[in-house]
Amino acid sequence: MGKVLMGSSPLLYPTPTVLVGANVDGKPNFMAVAWCGIVNSEPAMISVAIQHHRYTHKGITQNLTFSVNIPSIEMVKETDYCGIISGHKVDKVEVCQFKVFYGKLDNAPLIEQCPVNLECKVMQMLNLGSHSLFVGRIEESHISESCFTDGNPDVDKIKPLTFIVGPSRQYRALGEVVAKAFSIGKELEVGDNR
Amino acid sequence: MGKVLMGSSPLLYPTPTVLVGANVDGKPNFMAVAWCGIVNSEPAMISVAIQHHRYTHKGITQNLTFSVNIPSIEMVKETDYCGIISGHKVDKVEVCQFKVFYGKLDNAPLIEQCPVNLECKVMQMLNLGSHSLFVGRIEESHISESCFTDGNPDVDKIKPLTFIVGPSRQYRALGEVVAKAFSIGKELEVGDNR
Repeated sequence: MGKVLMGSSPLLYPTPTVLVGANVDGKPNFMAVAWCGIVNSEPAMISVAIQHHRYTHKGITQNLTFSVNIPSIEMVKETDYCGIISGHKVDKVEVCQFKVFYGKLDNAPLIEQCPVNLECKVMQMLNLGSHSLFVGRIEESHISESCFTDGNPDVDKIKPLTFIVGPSRQYRALGEVVAKAFSIGKELEVGDNR
Repeated sequence: MGKVLMGSSPLLYPTPTVLVGANVDGKPNFMAVAWCGIVNSEPAMISVAIQHHRYTHKGITQNLTFSVNIPSIEMVKETDYCGIISGHKVDKVEVCQFKVFYGKLDNAPLIEQCPVNLECKVMQMLNLGSHSLFVGRIEESHISESCFTDGNPDVDKIKPLTFIVGPSRQYRALGEVVAKAFSIGKELEVGDNR
């Protein structure tokens, strides 16, 4: 099987789609971000990569807090809008009719309509070139009551979006369950390898 | 709509599923990682979060290189195996029958069967608590010839896995296209906001 070389390209498939929130000059603003990932478990931390000139970048550096809000597929239009338009120009909260609330931190704005909200305090900030990488400690997590099944968050009720990089640039839903993790691999175990 | 507080939890939905490769004491080893994300575009960089005691962690710190290999859904059993078993105990390359090759870097092992391979050079390493966050510059990207359509990588041929956190711990396929990105949001634009 041959390979085609694509140079130095950020080809990760898929990435999540989140709305990163920050108060900018005291007012809530949100931007769509695909370059987001969990980076630590004890304590729980998440990173978001944001270009230096972004309005949200200004807000995060003002407060050293931010939020990660996971939109459901029903919010795809508002989510995409928050990736196209700058908060310099419009009040995205008003256009998107987001209901904003605050949790444990008093300056990390959260979107009620998003099924998952994470409040984050900046622990590290790396200037990597085009982007700043903000590493945030997750101070509190909020999940919509309607997204639980048997006492646990249910991804089929959360209905998150994935983002696909490349010329097609799509938002995709989750598909079928392929396998149970930390389970199907045991079929390959030979003898007492664990 | 009420919210349930879940404390400090790493609740990002979904995350990608990749096989991170490193040579450990000169031999290729791979582990399954969901905590991986793009962190910069110019130059292209990716991060992987790995617990300090992991065998792969040892290899990355030995060479200051690593690879990110994206398995397709057909490789779910081998992928999960690489998340269950430590390279301390078994030769995962042999058990999984991975065909290993090297690219631009001579010590970041790549898996031929994976449709996407990224060769990375460590630029930053953060000790965040339970995990080290390795930030790697993507030196070269390899895509299987069979995964192109009209000259571009096609995610429907790559068929990546997502990982869903929580008690259900699932690998999921990608689902339907919900919308075109940087496009559907324009329907919300009012006047000359761009």
